[in-house]
Amino acid sequence: MAGLRTREELKRLEDLGRICRGDIIKMTTVANSGHPGGSMSSIDIFLSIYDFAKNDPNKPFDPERDRVIVSHGHTSPGVYSTLGRLGFVDIDEVIAGFRHPGSIFEGHITRGIPGVEWTTGNLGQGLSVGVGMALASKLSGKNNRVFVAMSDAEQAKGQVGEARRTAVKYGLDNLVVVIDYNDAQISGRAHNIMYVDIKANYLADGWKVIEVDGHDYLELNEALVEAEDSKGPVVVIGKTIMGKGVSFMEGDVSYHGKPLDFEKAALALAELGLENDIDRFVQMRKVLPSYHEQVQAIDEDVKPFTGDPIVYPVEKKTDNRSAFGKAVGDIGRLNKGRLPVMVVDCDLKPSTKVSEFEKVWPENFVQIGVQEHNAATLAGAASVCGVLTFFADFGVFGVDETYNQQRLNDINKANVKVGVTHVGIDVGEDGKTHHCLDYIGALRNFYGFKLIVPADPNQTDKAVRFMSETKGNFVIAMGRSTMNPVADENGNPFFGEEYKFEYGKVDVIRKGKDITLVTTGQVTHHAVKAADELRSHGIEVAVLNVSCPLGANFDSVKEFFSSIVISLEDHNVASGLGSILADYLVGSGIIPKSFEKIGVERYMFSGDNELLYDLAGLSSKAIVERIRGIIK
Amino acid sequence: MAGLRTREELKRLEDLGRICRGDIIKMTTVANSGHPGGSMSSIDIFLSIYDFAKNDPNKPFDPERDRVIVSHGHTSPGVYSTLGRLGFVDIDEVIAGFRHPGSIFEGHITRGIPGVEWTTGNLGQGLSVGVGMALASKLSGKNNRVFVAMSDAEQAKGQVGEARRTAVKYGLDNLVVVIDYNDAQISGRAHNIMYVDIKANYLADGWKVIEVDGHDYLELNEALVEAEDSKGPVVVIGKTIMGKGVSFMEGDVSYHGKPLDFEKAALALAELGLENDIDRFVQMRKVLPSYHEQVQAIDEDVKPFTGDPIVYPVEKKTDNRSAFGKAVGDIGRLNKGRLPVMVVDCDLKPSTKVSEFEKVWPENFVQIGVQEHNAATLAGAASVCGVLTFFADFGVFGVDETYNQQRLNDINKANVKVGVTHVGIDVGEDGKTHHCLDYIGALRNFYGFKLIVPADPNQTDKAVRFMSETKGNFVIAMGRSTMNPVADENGNPFFGEEYKFEYGKVDVIRKGKDITLVTTGQVTHHAVKAADELRSHGIEVAVLNVSCPLGANFDSVKEFFSSIVISLEDHNVASGLGSILADYLVGSGIIPKSFEKIGVERYMFSGDNELLYDLAGLSSKAIVERIRGIIK
Repeated sequence: MAGLRTREELKRLEDLGRICRGDIIKMTTVANSGHPGGSMSSIDIFLSIYDFAKNDPNKPFDPERDRVIVSHGHTSPGVYSTLGRLGFVDIDEVIAGFRHPGSIFEGHITRGIPGVEWTTGNLGQGLSVGVGMALASKLSGKNNRVFVAMSDAEQAKGQVGEARRTAVKYGLDNLVVVIDYNDAQISGRAHNIMYVDIKANYLADGWKVIEVDGHDYLELNEALVEAEDSKGPVVVIGKTIMGKGVSFMEGDVSYHGKPLDFEKAALALAELGLENDIDRFVQMRKVLPSYHEQVQAIDEDVKPFTGDPIVYPVEKKTDNRSAFGKAVGDIGRLNKGRLPVMVVDCDLKPSTKVSEFEKVWPENFVQIGVQEHNAATLAGAASVCGVLTFFADFGVFGVDETYNQQRLNDINKANVKVGVTHVGIDVGEDGKTHHCLDYIGALRNFYGFKLIVPADPNQTDKAVRFMSETKGNFVIAMGRSTMNPVADENGNPFFGEEYKFEYGKVDVIRKGKDITLVTTGQVTHHAVKAADELRSHGIEVAVLNVSCPLGANFDSVKEFFSSIVISLEDHNVASGLGSILADYLVGSGIIPKSFEKIGVERYMFSGDNELLYDLAGLSSKAIVERIRGIIK
Repeated sequence: MAGLRTREELKRLEDLGRICRGDIIKMTTVANSGHPGGSMSSIDIFLSIYDFAKNDPNKPFDPERDRVIVSHGHTSPGVYSTLGRLGFVDIDEVIAGFRHPGSIFEGHITRGIPGVEWTTGNLGQGLSVGVGMALASKLSGKNNRVFVAMSDAEQAKGQVGEARRTAVKYGLDNLVVVIDYNDAQISGRAHNIMYVDIKANYLADGWKVIEVDGHDYLELNEALVEAEDSKGPVVVIGKTIMGKGVSFMEGDVSYHGKPLDFEKAALALAELGLENDIDRFVQMRKVLPSYHEQVQAIDEDVKPFTGDPIVYPVEKKTDNRSAFGKAVGDIGRLNKGRLPVMVVDCDLKPSTKVSEFEKVWPENFVQIGVQEHNAATLAGAASVCGVLTFFADFGVFGVDETYNQQRLNDINKANVKVGVTHVGIDVGEDGKTHHCLDYIGALRNFYGFKLIVPADPNQTDKAVRFMSETKGNFVIAMGRSTMNPVADENGNPFFGEEYKFEYGKVDVIRKGKDITLVTTGQVTHHAVKAADELRSHGIEVAVLNVSCPLGANFDSVKEFFSSIVISLEDHNVASGLGSILADYLVGSGIIPKSFEKIGVERYMFSGDNELLYDLAGLSSKAIVERIRGIIK
């Protein structure tokens, strides 16, 4: 609980520090794996922060709790021992189970364990997490604070600078960073490996800096109190010693990732004045189950009003991204004053169309500038704090540049709604650096993210409303160009009034016995146009639209696959829809008459998107030609 | 050519600035697309740098040339007009062809065009490119210099800070950065979007800062001369005005990405005192071809000695990463004093084993610390400057965290040899944040990168030597644990003396008619063990090792696919080898008796890698059980 500590309270923490050091040694020795050195360096910081934060061990998922983020997730022994000794978890279970598949106490800290707010381990993302949570707190009108513990080595990561600037821009006076400055990392002294003037860097970005002895509980406590009263974000730089507390470990970088053997552990525990009960934990470990279920955090429900769909008439050309922007704007308007909604932009609002939201709710429009890594992480973090969070960007930034940030959002089972526009060669003139050709193939590598690639503005509108009210991480991927919304055979909007978006459903837009086109996104309307033209030549072409390539219910349309099957996609032909369909066909033992994949076969160049579609075989003209070549 | 300019020379440049501004307007108007505002803001900087650099338009690929990197690649009209007016390219072709698919002059500048050293467009990578090229120059003992032009908006990108620190660490006095500080970006004034105190940031990282008027040729020239004499990297911050030179464009951010219409273009050209010959270019454009071949830079040949392979005996357990480290060390030893070889590490050398190289050639061992984005880009850039360049990292960093940096290396057709260790759940206790499960699926999205996933230390050794002497980008992906090298049926090393690595070859390690296991990497030895055990039970199992999943020559082994086929991989089961094989089977019309994919089906947790393999069905024990369940 915040505030200045009495001498007795400090004494208690100091004693816990000694006990936790023993726990760190025990658990790493029992596991014969893990990172004791950094844990013993950070332990006094962890105890100080967790003790200071308002976070009741009996209500660890209370929405009003302070959040503690530990960015250097490999110091899990330090974090777990702190949580054990402060009553969040059972310390015996920690020591016996650390890094065992039958235990939740993994090698890197894992969200869902009481007191752990974010799974970390890939350095440099933690400050963005803290910024996201501190922003969420502000936008929700809560008073909770956010503490971020970090290592010194990871100060070299660029994403930290991005997060730093964002914290200053948004005046996050509810954010405190504490850096474990032990000047030691795997390859030696941090200042030799890659010198970072940490203080100068934080000052350059406008932070208040407090320097303390990172093993002195009084100095740490005073710094946290001072930070609480500051007008903006504060960093506390705590000078520490790796392996602190055990003479033969102090300053020895080889203990970064190396546990003590039983003999050395006995020596260390004796030096710490602690009982050596390691054998008890070795015995406990032997009877652990062979695996554990995934831990699950309890997040605030996010139940937005999603309003009524907009129906776009088939006569009028429009683009998916405009429909996206309008729907997001709509959701902003409907929920303003009811549920916090936040939109994160990286200086592309006129193109991604989220300026529609900014008009409605400018205070909640978060402009991060050209700092995509930070943007993706902070959006993920905010999304688990009761804020409906959208992150809008071009495909090459929101998927490719931030691939590992999204992977961590996925591992964290966050709830972020990513809208990426400008996917495919449909982007046209901006050329290969801006053609995102892997929005399916990249996300296919993740286990949790859901992907929607809508066919037209009508499907886009409904998909945006659907993902907003559905828990979990989503990407909705859209092209750039305009089109006439897809019509049914009677000329009415296919995704009109009656249509309800359903994740995984494959839309049968046209039926036909001669050939089956399987497509997605921006290519769908070209396929439909081709099918309609071919029908007038007596060739019956079925068109299936797969708006959810990663979760497509192909079983429901399998009667179409005994025909000649062609997949069509504005995506790398090797790694997208065609490959997923092939996988399904082989796995299901379905043998089409023939199977062919059409997609983008090389990095494409600049050019008008219609020309590029012709070249790639994706325009209606090219599709007609191809099919007339097959069916003479 | 470097040095102080006379008044006449400056006058000539100034006049070229006026003419180039006209070119910028013409080409964007003719293309009806592109970025005139920033181009006109940067044009005086571009002219000053290209005029100053030692780079003969008649020998644009001379290895001794100075390199000019333009990080804000969307200012291509500015770069192309500069190159046109300085004699590198034909200005008429530029103006007529800009952003047309029949022209090499794409929307973002493209490596291979004379004078363009790197394809950029995704902001924030250019300084890393410059650092890589400046380092390469130092390691090669050349005297050439590197100039990097950047925008102010991209100073917010974290990767810039990473590159900045690296330049200081390596004392790169041959590197000069010039920033176009126009304080304008898409959404408005840069300082409102995401404030960066550019000067303070460079100073904090130890750079020398010179501030000038970015439209004043004298000041720019004096700054470049001063930079040349400095002891470390220098940044020149040039204050500029977006749209400079045409009154109604100046300071108007809407011209960031919007061309003038014909009428406005006429007004602008008149104001610049230039002839309006736009119609001539419109006519030229009409007769351009419908697409162009890829442009190709001429890089220095890199022909290393690769030495004799090391053969690891089957009795002794070892790990692929040790074999990798040894081979890289060997190549260092063999080429020292003959060909520059460089190894880039991100503070993981004891684990990736590249410390073997450091022992041999410490001066060329480049330690970047925890700055993976920068490391990946600088390695790619150095690799096209005559330096044999390795980048070693864990899979989650060298592939996932740096996904878009590797994508740009791919687009740039670089020559970097990426060694990633710690792929798969074979990593064990470090848990899900460190289990790289997408090393195949991620790279499958790129068009050029080659991927090798060696089965054992013997194949690793040969693969490393192969990729070192073979042009192009490679990733070699390795697990963490040790194994007995794979033996043939007589107990000799399968990949022994006689074996020659061949890209794409599928290795038939065991033959058998009952079932075919198709596998890769760390799983291979488990599959072989299972096959040998099953043989003693009368079940004949073929084992195919696919060391090159992205280029596998499945045709050569297709007789094995009519059997029961099972793919086995320590990879996300959805996106790896099994999916590639399914794709091949459907595409080739081959129908196996049955087809099943075994791989990793969820984010796995911490645990001993053998336990995890049991759980995932990848251990020899699990494979035997599975097969005995199928063939009773």
